[in-house]
Amino acid sequence: MKHILLLSMGGTIASVPTETGLSPAFSPQEMLRLIPALEGLCEISTEEVASLDSTNIQPEEWITLAKRIFDNLNAYDGFVVSHGTDTMAYTAAALSYMLQGLHKPVILTGAQLPIHYPGSDGKANLLNAFRAAVVGAPGVYIAFDGIIISGTRASKLYSENFAAFQSINAPVAGVIQEGDIFQAGRAIFTHPQPFPETEPKLMPYADPRVFVYKLIPGADPSIVDMAVKLGYRGILLEAYGAGGVPNYRRDFLPSISRATQAGVVVLCATQCIYDGTRSDIYTVSSLPRSAGAISTEDRTVEASAVKLMWALGQTDDAAVAIELFLNAPPL
Amino acid sequence: MKHILLLSMGGTIASVPTETGLSPAFSPQEMLRLIPALEGLCEISTEEVASLDSTNIQPEEWITLAKRIFDNLNAYDGFVVSHGTDTMAYTAAALSYMLQGLHKPVILTGAQLPIHYPGSDGKANLLNAFRAAVVGAPGVYIAFDGIIISGTRASKLYSENFAAFQSINAPVAGVIQEGDIFQAGRAIFTHPQPFPETEPKLMPYADPRVFVYKLIPGADPSIVDMAVKLGYRGILLEAYGAGGVPNYRRDFLPSISRATQAGVVVLCATQCIYDGTRSDIYTVSSLPRSAGAISTEDRTVEASAVKLMWALGQTDDAAVAIELFLNAPPL
Repeated sequence: MKHILLLSMGGTIASVPTETGLSPAFSPQEMLRLIPALEGLCEISTEEVASLDSTNIQPEEWITLAKRIFDNLNAYDGFVVSHGTDTMAYTAAALSYMLQGLHKPVILTGAQLPIHYPGSDGKANLLNAFRAAVVGAPGVYIAFDGIIISGTRASKLYSENFAAFQSINAPVAGVIQEGDIFQAGRAIFTHPQPFPETEPKLMPYADPRVFVYKLIPGADPSIVDMAVKLGYRGILLEAYGAGGVPNYRRDFLPSISRATQAGVVVLCATQCIYDGTRSDIYTVSSLPRSAGAISTEDRTVEASAVKLMWALGQTDDAAVAIELFLNAPPL
Repeated sequence: MKHILLLSMGGTIASVPTETGLSPAFSPQEMLRLIPALEGLCEISTEEVASLDSTNIQPEEWITLAKRIFDNLNAYDGFVVSHGTDTMAYTAAALSYMLQGLHKPVILTGAQLPIHYPGSDGKANLLNAFRAAVVGAPGVYIAFDGIIISGTRASKLYSENFAAFQSINAPVAGVIQEGDIFQAGRAIFTHPQPFPETEPKLMPYADPRVFVYKLIPGADPSIVDMAVKLGYRGILLEAYGAGGVPNYRRDFLPSISRATQAGVVVLCATQCIYDGTRSDIYTVSSLPRSAGAISTEDRTVEASAVKLMWALGQTDDAAVAIELFLNAPPL
């Protein structure tokens, strides 16, 4: 029988009412006790890494979590991480970059309602995360509401709906097949990540000096200069459509040029959830490239910001960071 | 026969290839000539208001456009606005607030491919916008890819797919029923906006000093203080899930308190596309309210930012701006 380590981070799934609203309090053992169907699926050990609403999970927690997984790689067949939904997509991306060459599964899950509430999605999600983990497909995934999403491909699109996460610009990695009287439920990976060609390597880097500026009409390019002055090393412009930034009246190109020439990495992403950026179609999306900006292409904003933090955490050289951003796996 | 004014703003629909990529160049008359099905639907006049990629459309253009519509309210039965898709949701929201008590339809549309390209969605979208306009349902709408969305409810979710816009946290306002040999195609409004109880009033206000800060893990609350120092009068935090902001390690609450006490309006929105914010569930989403922040509830980020710009454009008093943001129509 496989042996899975449950690492708990807090989140709605573990939350209870307090005077100011829901806050995490349930232990991992208390959650497991609510899911009798886990009996016979795998052996489970638990460790409480944090007890935080995931709004409060930050790069420091990513690093702690990545280290706990890496240090236990040989002791377990796989890992389940219970985690709040709010920043789960960011944590899944961070683990995907920090745990290079991962030979074992790391499955994140959580819930939109506390696990002890009637009608909560917590029990099904946690059960399904273990079902996904025992399959053994290597890599970081989110298992949520019956689908499995690669760690760098998830966005939380719904703040309340149980189908909180969608797979962005990539097929879902897998699905949960529910059991019946003839067989138990199980996870099926239709699009697993490639088996790594390298040995596992811990790369726990995250420079938080990445600034995300979401453009709205009237947005001021001097904010880019201000971010450079404040010492930010990366600026992600959440631009429009194919990655266009204004070059009229409030022209962003001079500010982008100044930033990239000062050694700051500027990314052009899009506010559109789907389809990504294209720096080769429109004038407004091709000119930022001429000013030294990098197009995030089909990556999510979550994965782009995290990967840039990870890249900048390894080097003082913007060119090296850009090379890592563009070419280090997962792409 | 109804008389509709087509106001053209540029956008992909009117674009042609240039050395640096696609840029707007087609005139409204050239676009109309490509759509023989408009014959007999309505009488059409045209006016070119701008010829911009909508990435470059800014509050100044919103005001020009709102004035052109208001000045022509008695001369036409309705208005179609051809516009780039990138910021169409922002412009639709701006017109919705600037043209209070509108008794006539204003239908925005555009395309994901230039109208003269084979297989472009431009001809169908423009035809459908006129079909929607002749129905006469008052208010601002986007007609795109066969659906009609209320002006404050649209987000562009796809940068390439023809189904670019979705109706967020509200049913679609209407649909296009395609024609057959027995009848012409037509627009059906299943959820029209209420007929206004007041006379039309032009309120062309937009203070661009609204700063949108998208949170990522590691985001620094001192950016809020910086925005206050730079003279921003509104700060929209694109926060997590139900509208949660960190209150641990990088605690945003003191910065939010300082901002609101300095007379800056702070909005808590969510990165989740659907379901909106709830300031009454979680500790991390209830505490910002105690610090004076306003929850954007079910509004889109686009409509929230634009409505705040509109509110701040009318008053120097933060309390009055908040009252307008929360209660001026459309909600």
